[in-house]
Amino acid sequence: MTDVDSLAQGIQHQQKRAIARGLSWIERDQQLGKDLVRTLFPLAGHAHVIGITGAPGVGKSTLVNRLALALRSQGQRIGILAVDPSSPFSGGAILGDRIRMQDSVMDEGVFMRSLATRGHLGGLSRATFGAVTLLDAAGFDSVLIETVGAGQSEVEVMQLAHSTVVVQAPGLGDDIQAIKAGILEIGQIFVVNKADHEGADHTVRAIRGMLTLGLEHLDWFPPILKTVAERDEGTDAVIRALQDHRAYLQESGQWARMRADQTTHIIELAVRDWAEEALRAARSDANWDKWHEDVLTGRRDAAHVATEVVRRRLAWD
Amino acid sequence: MTDVDSLAQGIQHQQKRAIARGLSWIERDQQLGKDLVRTLFPLAGHAHVIGITGAPGVGKSTLVNRLALALRSQGQRIGILAVDPSSPFSGGAILGDRIRMQDSVMDEGVFMRSLATRGHLGGLSRATFGAVTLLDAAGFDSVLIETVGAGQSEVEVMQLAHSTVVVQAPGLGDDIQAIKAGILEIGQIFVVNKADHEGADHTVRAIRGMLTLGLEHLDWFPPILKTVAERDEGTDAVIRALQDHRAYLQESGQWARMRADQTTHIIELAVRDWAEEALRAARSDANWDKWHEDVLTGRRDAAHVATEVVRRRLAWD
Repeated sequence: MTDVDSLAQGIQHQQKRAIARGLSWIERDQQLGKDLVRTLFPLAGHAHVIGITGAPGVGKSTLVNRLALALRSQGQRIGILAVDPSSPFSGGAILGDRIRMQDSVMDEGVFMRSLATRGHLGGLSRATFGAVTLLDAAGFDSVLIETVGAGQSEVEVMQLAHSTVVVQAPGLGDDIQAIKAGILEIGQIFVVNKADHEGADHTVRAIRGMLTLGLEHLDWFPPILKTVAERDEGTDAVIRALQDHRAYLQESGQWARMRADQTTHIIELAVRDWAEEALRAARSDANWDKWHEDVLTGRRDAAHVATEVVRRRLAWD
Repeated sequence: MTDVDSLAQGIQHQQKRAIARGLSWIERDQQLGKDLVRTLFPLAGHAHVIGITGAPGVGKSTLVNRLALALRSQGQRIGILAVDPSSPFSGGAILGDRIRMQDSVMDEGVFMRSLATRGHLGGLSRATFGAVTLLDAAGFDSVLIETVGAGQSEVEVMQLAHSTVVVQAPGLGDDIQAIKAGILEIGQIFVVNKADHEGADHTVRAIRGMLTLGLEHLDWFPPILKTVAERDEGTDAVIRALQDHRAYLQESGQWARMRADQTTHIIELAVRDWAEEALRAARSDANWDKWHEDVLTGRRDAAHVATEVVRRRLAWD
């Protein structure tokens, strides 16, 4: 039995150490991590994947805690991924509050992990896809993905979720922020947290106004809910909206379609990985310098060299 | 002669319409654009590629205008790319000031263009790589790339430049901003613009303090220059620093190494494009549904399917 197979077995048996180790492989984008995700993929497809996004300061982590505890009290097992789009250079953690979150979820049925990648663009959404697949295969009923909703990478990450909750708070100018980051388009549930603060109704109206502009044609009209996560107010309504959205996805056939899309996606990843492997092999090929020179001088088009790179690699397989 | 070849010829003959059309192909990430970039690549490698980045409001566009006019007055032909990382959904232009810029550079020796891509992550840096290659092959002596230095994509774009100028202004809290975005690590020249405003010396000291922390080991210690671009003050010192940095890159062998890296990069792009083409072909292959089912049910690992996808595609070539 390979390392990957035995780890996959541990993960299926819900061993926390196996889960943690697998997530580390995935986060570091190692070959073992890629093999593991492909191995686990057929076992996944059951968890409700919930994205929770919003600017810093809206009380996102507190809300995530409340939702996790509420789902846990229904008997669910919950995975939480705090996705941290570190700068590729400075590597600083943006989600400084994740330590706080870890304290509150020490129960056996809750697994919390923060994910960061410093690599290339797209690395974060790939790592998140892998981590979600792992937690899903490990039998977690819901997987919560928490991100700071700021950039393109977070939007890509949120597209992995079945249901995305966009959290805002009064008085942060988030109505404008939301348009900029394209966050409105990815939200299926809107939450105005800190609803006991001044201006909460204004924020609700601002969101409603923007939603009405663009989404009349949809079957699912995103609810706009008020919460005070600090005092656990409104949590149940968010949970109900999530259950409604899950039911909507299943009845409309979208749930199955998302799973089919993921299957396509993992084949795509495997083909792309094959190409990267071919490139790695090419760089240590005896012909590399000649290929390089041919392309630099224009003797051959890079596309011709590419076909030769692929052909040589395939001869090995 | 193919469309690509005749367009490439027009670009070499510095025809503005051919240049504009080629840039549109590249921006839209079409097959023709990819073919064009590979065709032009051997003709490039001569232009000094200069990145200019900084937060909105620091006077970046004004500085770009000043630099372009100063280089133009030395007899250079100048290409300017204003890179606009639109939100993938809302597609709004961030560089609202680019119209203003176009007014001032109507001379035949200056070509200005804004670039935006709405596609996947990494699309922006690929389009910029293509656009720089095109302008370089068209004989522009310097290519200026202007970005809002905020996210990961801009950092990737800036890595295409030989020399990156990081622009800041007093009183915007940019010293902190710089660390967050990892901008310090990509700058080879720092400019404090609006140096007639209060706090300019403080900003200079803040930059110097941060540079001294991390970069003692480098051969090139980034100069920190003060400008008032509005009144064309300090432009010449920036031009001199750019020339010094170019000379430094050439003498240290880094200029040649960057060209070699670009050659590797274009082979990589060609291999990746080959893989994407294989995937497109796979999706209309009679076996696609079976492959999909095999992966979904776990009958076969996605890696095995990937090898088959590649093999079938290669049989065609």
